[in-house]
Amino acid sequence: MSTPDPGWQPPPQLRRLAELDTDRAARRGYPEAVYCAGKTPDQVARIAQALGQRAENPQATTLFTRADPDHAKAVLTALPDAHYDDTARLLAWPAEPPAPTGGLIVVAAAGTSDLPVATEAQLTATYLGRSTDLVVDVGVAGLHRVLGHLDLLRSARAIVVAAGMDGALPGVIAGLVSAPVIAVPTSVGYGAAFEGLAPLLTMLNACAPGVAVVNIDNGYGAGHMAAQIAAN
Amino acid sequence: MSTPDPGWQPPPQLRRLAELDTDRAARRGYPEAVYCAGKTPDQVARIAQALGQRAENPQATTLFTRADPDHAKAVLTALPDAHYDDTARLLAWPAEPPAPTGGLIVVAAAGTSDLPVATEAQLTATYLGRSTDLVVDVGVAGLHRVLGHLDLLRSARAIVVAAGMDGALPGVIAGLVSAPVIAVPTSVGYGAAFEGLAPLLTMLNACAPGVAVVNIDNGYGAGHMAAQIAAN
Amino acid sequence: MSTPDPGWQPPPQLRRLAELDTDRAARRGYPEAVYCAGKTPDQVARIAQALGQRAENPQATTLFTRADPDHAKAVLTALPDAHYDDTARLLAWPAEPPAPTGGLIVVAAAGTSDLPVATEAQLTATYLGRSTDLVVDVGVAGLHRVLGHLDLLRSARAIVVAAGMDGALPGVIAGLVSAPVIAVPTSVGYGAAFEGLAPLLTMLNACAPGVAVVNIDNGYGAGHMAAQIAAN
Amino acid sequence: MSTPDPGWQPPPQLRRLAELDTDRAARRGYPEAVYCAGKTPDQVARIAQALGQRAENPQATTLFTRADPDHAKAVLTALPDAHYDDTARLLAWPAEPPAPTGGLIVVAAAGTSDLPVATEAQLTATYLGRSTDLVVDVGVAGLHRVLGHLDLLRSARAIVVAAGMDGALPGVIAGLVSAPVIAVPTSVGYGAAFEGLAPLLTMLNACAPGVAVVNIDNGYGAGHMAAQIAAN
Amino acid sequence: MSTPDPGWQPPPQLRRLAELDTDRAARRGYPEAVYCAGKTPDQVARIAQALGQRAENPQATTLFTRADPDHAKAVLTALPDAHYDDTARLLAWPAEPPAPTGGLIVVAAAGTSDLPVATEAQLTATYLGRSTDLVVDVGVAGLHRVLGHLDLLRSARAIVVAAGMDGALPGVIAGLVSAPVIAVPTSVGYGAAFEGLAPLLTMLNACAPGVAVVNIDNGYGAGHMAAQIAAN
Amino acid sequence: MSTPDPGWQPPPQLRRLAELDTDRAARRGYPEAVYCAGKTPDQVARIAQALGQRAENPQATTLFTRADPDHAKAVLTALPDAHYDDTARLLAWPAEPPAPTGGLIVVAAAGTSDLPVATEAQLTATYLGRSTDLVVDVGVAGLHRVLGHLDLLRSARAIVVAAGMDGALPGVIAGLVSAPVIAVPTSVGYGAAFEGLAPLLTMLNACAPGVAVVNIDNGYGAGHMAAQIAAN
Amino acid sequence: MSTPDPGWQPPPQLRRLAELDTDRAARRGYPEAVYCAGKTPDQVARIAQALGQRAENPQATTLFTRADPDHAKAVLTALPDAHYDDTARLLAWPAEPPAPTGGLIVVAAAGTSDLPVATEAQLTATYLGRSTDLVVDVGVAGLHRVLGHLDLLRSARAIVVAAGMDGALPGVIAGLVSAPVIAVPTSVGYGAAFEGLAPLLTMLNACAPGVAVVNIDNGYGAGHMAAQIAAN
Amino acid sequence: MSTPDPGWQPPPQLRRLAELDTDRAARRGYPEAVYCAGKTPDQVARIAQALGQRAENPQATTLFTRADPDHAKAVLTALPDAHYDDTARLLAWPAEPPAPTGGLIVVAAAGTSDLPVATEAQLTATYLGRSTDLVVDVGVAGLHRVLGHLDLLRSARAIVVAAGMDGALPGVIAGLVSAPVIAVPTSVGYGAAFEGLAPLLTMLNACAPGVAVVNIDNGYGAGHMAAQIAAN
Repeated sequence: MSTPDPGWQPPPQLRRLAELDTDRAARRGYPEAVYCAGKTPDQVARIAQALGQRAENPQATTLFTRADPDHAKAVLTALPDAHYDDTARLLAWPAEPPAPTGGLIVVAAAGTSDLPVATEAQLTATYLGRSTDLVVDVGVAGLHRVLGHLDLLRSARAIVVAAGMDGALPGVIAGLVSAPVIAVPTSVGYGAAFEGLAPLLTMLNACAPGVAVVNIDNGYGAGHMAAQIAAN
Repeated sequence: MSTPDPGWQPPPQLRRLAELDTDRAARRGYPEAVYCAGKTPDQVARIAQALGQRAENPQATTLFTRADPDHAKAVLTALPDAHYDDTARLLAWPAEPPAPTGGLIVVAAAGTSDLPVATEAQLTATYLGRSTDLVVDVGVAGLHRVLGHLDLLRSARAIVVAAGMDGALPGVIAGLVSAPVIAVPTSVGYGAAFEGLAPLLTMLNACAPGVAVVNIDNGYGAGHMAAQIAAN
Repeated sequence: MSTPDPGWQPPPQLRRLAELDTDRAARRGYPEAVYCAGKTPDQVARIAQALGQRAENPQATTLFTRADPDHAKAVLTALPDAHYDDTARLLAWPAEPPAPTGGLIVVAAAGTSDLPVATEAQLTATYLGRSTDLVVDVGVAGLHRVLGHLDLLRSARAIVVAAGMDGALPGVIAGLVSAPVIAVPTSVGYGAAFEGLAPLLTMLNACAPGVAVVNIDNGYGAGHMAAQIAAN
Repeated sequence: MSTPDPGWQPPPQLRRLAELDTDRAARRGYPEAVYCAGKTPDQVARIAQALGQRAENPQATTLFTRADPDHAKAVLTALPDAHYDDTARLLAWPAEPPAPTGGLIVVAAAGTSDLPVATEAQLTATYLGRSTDLVVDVGVAGLHRVLGHLDLLRSARAIVVAAGMDGALPGVIAGLVSAPVIAVPTSVGYGAAFEGLAPLLTMLNACAPGVAVVNIDNGYGAGHMAAQIAAN
Repeated sequence: MSTPDPGWQPPPQLRRLAELDTDRAARRGYPEAVYCAGKTPDQVARIAQALGQRAENPQATTLFTRADPDHAKAVLTALPDAHYDDTARLLAWPAEPPAPTGGLIVVAAAGTSDLPVATEAQLTATYLGRSTDLVVDVGVAGLHRVLGHLDLLRSARAIVVAAGMDGALPGVIAGLVSAPVIAVPTSVGYGAAFEGLAPLLTMLNACAPGVAVVNIDNGYGAGHMAAQIAAN
Repeated sequence: MSTPDPGWQPPPQLRRLAELDTDRAARRGYPEAVYCAGKTPDQVARIAQALGQRAENPQATTLFTRADPDHAKAVLTALPDAHYDDTARLLAWPAEPPAPTGGLIVVAAAGTSDLPVATEAQLTATYLGRSTDLVVDVGVAGLHRVLGHLDLLRSARAIVVAAGMDGALPGVIAGLVSAPVIAVPTSVGYGAAFEGLAPLLTMLNACAPGVAVVNIDNGYGAGHMAAQIAAN
Repeated sequence: MSTPDPGWQPPPQLRRLAELDTDRAARRGYPEAVYCAGKTPDQVARIAQALGQRAENPQATTLFTRADPDHAKAVLTALPDAHYDDTARLLAWPAEPPAPTGGLIVVAAAGTSDLPVATEAQLTATYLGRSTDLVVDVGVAGLHRVLGHLDLLRSARAIVVAAGMDGALPGVIAGLVSAPVIAVPTSVGYGAAFEGLAPLLTMLNACAPGVAVVNIDNGYGAGHMAAQIAAN
Repeated sequence: MSTPDPGWQPPPQLRRLAELDTDRAARRGYPEAVYCAGKTPDQVARIAQALGQRAENPQATTLFTRADPDHAKAVLTALPDAHYDDTARLLAWPAEPPAPTGGLIVVAAAGTSDLPVATEAQLTATYLGRSTDLVVDVGVAGLHRVLGHLDLLRSARAIVVAAGMDGALPGVIAGLVSAPVIAVPTSVGYGAAFEGLAPLLTMLNACAPGVAVVNIDNGYGAGHMAAQIAAN
């Protein structure tokens, strides 16, 4: 809303925006990502422009996470050679992922409703330079489905498991493999799932060792962690 | 949102959808249900088409739960001989329930606002092959109402009780009958009901033994459990 | 503490104790149980004496739940022909269970630490007149253990599953059988199990239908519910 | 612990104790009470001595709440003509209650385990000058018990109901009478009662209007409120 | 949504609606109220019609609580001589309150944002037959405001206090008067008010005795309770 | 909604609005602020008019907090010489801040998404008469960013730190400076941030002493507190 | 427990203890404190010895917080010229506080049960070099008590308020003064105080601006913050 | 307690104990561990004996976690060549760890009070065959301490960080390194740490990607996960 203000305007020290962590790729080996939630499309566009000016030939992919269609539109205007995945709400620039190195990452989604989070994890790992694969709809209510994918799961260097509701899948998979499992709870489920709290607690309490947990619906964090584990 | 992507597209292993548990009816005696929440109407339509192709003459009913009108429209296009109940947000295919076997299931709703959940429970049990009956508006604030239905309640093999607010009805009914009571808390009530948490806790703490609880607003789960109990 | 009070003593209407629900066996078909927690051994002893005087030849078993050794001593003095199980903290009077009727109840304990609760469930069902069996240490971290008991589990009319930590076992079992599963969360586990809250939520959110839940550590309630389900 | 400090001692402004609200009886019509929890027996004794010196012939009763036996011993030394009830953990000075005025207060305890709280409420109301009566073990699992006391309950000007576990009793009683019901949740129950949280929520969500709630296990507050309501 | 169903329709026992507690005025002395939240306008309209047919000349007011404008429209069509207050979201039928009896009820609102709840309480008490008064914007941040109304507050037989945020006002008022205080927390406030949880807890923990609490935003319950207290 | 009521209208004592704390500037040295959330634009407009009439030449700024664009429009109509900041949702009247006195306040925002809260804090302090500065995007994931502002931070008399997600920034800054840090958690973050609960708890548990916390997203409170600290 | 191990002992990198922040006084102007909870008396003794060796003539006081009597004994053996306050569970070395500088700090305790926390705050501020005063038993249930101390409160540069139960005192005091108020919730109170959660929330939601909050029972943190505020 | 039972004894199917997962080393590559909490020393001793009989020359270490001194005594009797660490409450059999393979694991403890959990993690990783190192007392309140260990931290293949209170250390470390960080919250801290809930939430919300979390105080789980990550 533009208000017809009677004169006084805030001085510059009231109007600062962002300070990019340009040092991060050098320091950590992984580039910075831009978290779009809570930012206006205009703010995101200005950050995208700054990134575009900084690097004519970017070496590493920059990700824009939690990007709704309005954010996506703003970024694609500034960086037309970006890729937007509307299931994962993820933008990647440039669109082409790097050639994969390191070990295989398998992402498992307990149900179809967990796909947005699982896809965000898989795309993140892909853009950080890993080869990835996906198994879907392998919840513990029908064990034969997950048991049917054991060979693929046992070939992974790291596994990401996205599950809502009871969140039991990561513990069951961890009990069957030697690779570490990154569990990501989703906000899928009936009332007492409490927007992901129930699967979060389940995963933290997994009987099988070899499970560690990231934030609810945080597919980006899960994919990033898996990429670090599978780096070599 | 269709984005004008500059070339790169995710490879097939990034795009899988669902793996139906076709084995479930054989393994458990009850067919699979499709949970629609968190799925797009398009995803649900593709699942409905796959089901339609799998079984020309389906023996058992398939249920689509938590189906909003858009989901319903998508399923009815693929499976025109399905039935949609917009109170229960439930689709059943085929529309005609099987002939009832086993014992009677009585569903009790504490108030009119609990009807969506109670109806989902009753329809689920009906479609899983049980005879059912319904009593409404029998909350504990006027005990004579529930006492007036004692004969019906005592004739049941299993009872489902849906209640929000104080959630006291299941315990009161359990104290009056010999049949097991499946309690389903609803998200009906003032602020300190915390979207169903209050009646959930009440039901878990019922003084009368013979009460077991399912998830908040989970009429499907309550009806399924009751159908199993009343199977013989 | 006996205090040297200077004269005034509370009149009788300040000193009442208990009102037994002698009608319950007739009304519900199952006798009353005495919850000992929060009662002094002396109060429990007085209730036991009243029960002993009421029935020279009791037809049905009376249970004393949550009885610590001091409660047990007090009851056994009043009712010497009672049986006390110190794992389950359960007293039964008379000691001999009735001859079993109805279907088989199988109790599954995820781990050895869940045995107190599982035993309380099994003894309760046994004393309410059911035949029972027990499988122990079949947590989901090693699926082959639960799969090795499938025949026994599939022969049950009702199954009780006690589990702490991630509480995933009831959902996994429910996905494999047609019998209803009564899930009882236990307070076993690390910090974020929050004294049983985590497995409670897991069980309420079980992906597989056919699971209903009782209170944390409430083996008595689970066994009672199962006995009602398996009554015929 | 007396430590051999090397000299320095805190100055007086670091060592103050209490400031009695001597104005309260005049301002509100009800005298102050001393909450003993968190105070040392020595601190309570000093407060009792100050009270004893202030009033040679006290007009109104002073209550010491949450007094464990050590507190009681300390007070009885300073005020030998006090009365200590070890069930309610309440001390009253002087021991003799005033002659009753106003309407009748009926206190109902759902179970024997709720007696400490119910007794605290009843004694408080008695010492604030009301006539009181008590019904025990009238939980909703056996409705005939509470229905058997309807005449007494309907003769009350105010009713206090103490209940743990499901906390359903206050709402059921409120639906049967015209008097206001003060509900006091107790910390009695299994794990998911969460030390009184479950009955607290139940009572706040009572379907029947005419229920208001005080703190968990706060029999003093319930009795005080009832005494104010029944003042005329 | 009307679906083109292929034939099968649910039988009557799947379609029941409500069972009015016509006995309540006789049993309790206060008439039933209709809770509109969670009911469709059509359901409310059918209940209003049934009420209109039952009583040509109603003796007592019927209230419709939590009525949004669509509910109001539906009721006013069926009962044109009803009164709708859109601040309190309350409908009363007939519109004219009964002549007041009993003692005065004073309603205090901590801030202007608490007015919807305070008004619901005041109108409820008015329609149940009490004389009422209102003080607004007397939060504890400026004590002189509440102290300026002491004479009015001290003339009340019962006081209702609605407050959000810190919820401190009921305890402060209770410490100044002899009348009982019904505290009603509101969902007004910043994030850590957690939709009314913070003032709810504050009120349950009020240092001053003489405070009892009803559900968050439940002005109806507060006004009803106050009307019972001030009945004589 | 204007309803065609059949005659009866509520009497004046049912319709009061607000009681301004005109004494506050004298009593505390800081003027009152108007909290707009939960008030209708019309109510806010009437308060603004009253303020405008009370003071022809206001000495101190009045703030309207949590003002959405509709509130802003209403106030600007009544007080055209006010300033509205749509990021902070804050209105100030008159628009020009007073000349600064006291020490410098530095506001730090962990990320761009925390800017609305940080700006509210900074503007509040500015309008209460302090000089302020702002640093943005200095989260702990890239420590060099905050370390690069150490000179500015160490020149402050008080520091406000706004952060969501892990909320770690206030503790890190407090460990580096001698000035007191006011921490304000924001509702920015993934699911397990629970709308600001996670950073709130982090800040309360800061290892470094010298951190005190205000409500979630309460930039106004943080700025006010900082202005008091930096008053001299 | 000394176990008769068969040979293998953990190598040195498995046995490290502590790394003192010797730089803190220089960096922040306030010395480090040793948090004793969770440390064995032996560990604390070794830290005390290291401190004693580091500084023959210490310039600033070192505090040992949360020191139970066993910790105190261990420290006093190593540093005999320390002072131990068993109410505050605080050790100070050396025993004599520095000469006060800066403004006055007033500590207010709502009740006698809050004295341990209030004393910890007051001693901390005293040892960090401020002059301090204490008012006790000034809870909001009797407003005249806090109003009787207004002159002292208004002379403070910073105020610490310790309160349990409803935690309303900080907001009431903040509304009466211009100094900033540091609120410290205590774990004093009935069940629904939830070990300090209730007063914590109350304080975070204080209606009056000028209140910031530290951790439950954290008198040390409150005193430290106040000392920083009152430094000049 | 041995009770003088009058004859009846539970049949064998009421008395089962444990079912070892002997398949686990083959299936997962890591041996089973015995969780001692909730088991009696006698039960643990019988499990230890069974293990001792199973393997004359064990290839891999068996761990007994959460072993209090009584558990330790019982195991050491059965397996005298075991090692017990009373800080970590961990027993290992046989005592000598395997020769290390894979990458280095660095364990960081924020404070001395976190050492029990950190030691459990370090010993677990050591016994699963990794080389490990430990840094202690590197909390974020004094950043120079953690910055002083950057070379060691950057040489790790996986890092475990144990922290209580604000739990900020894992996120700060993750922002400085490329290795994945396993964060383990501890139950160390003041009241609002809520027994580890606060650091748990902080870690789940870490701004820096590359952090995954295990259960509160679960050093075993953290060390196991790290050993899997650093396996090659």
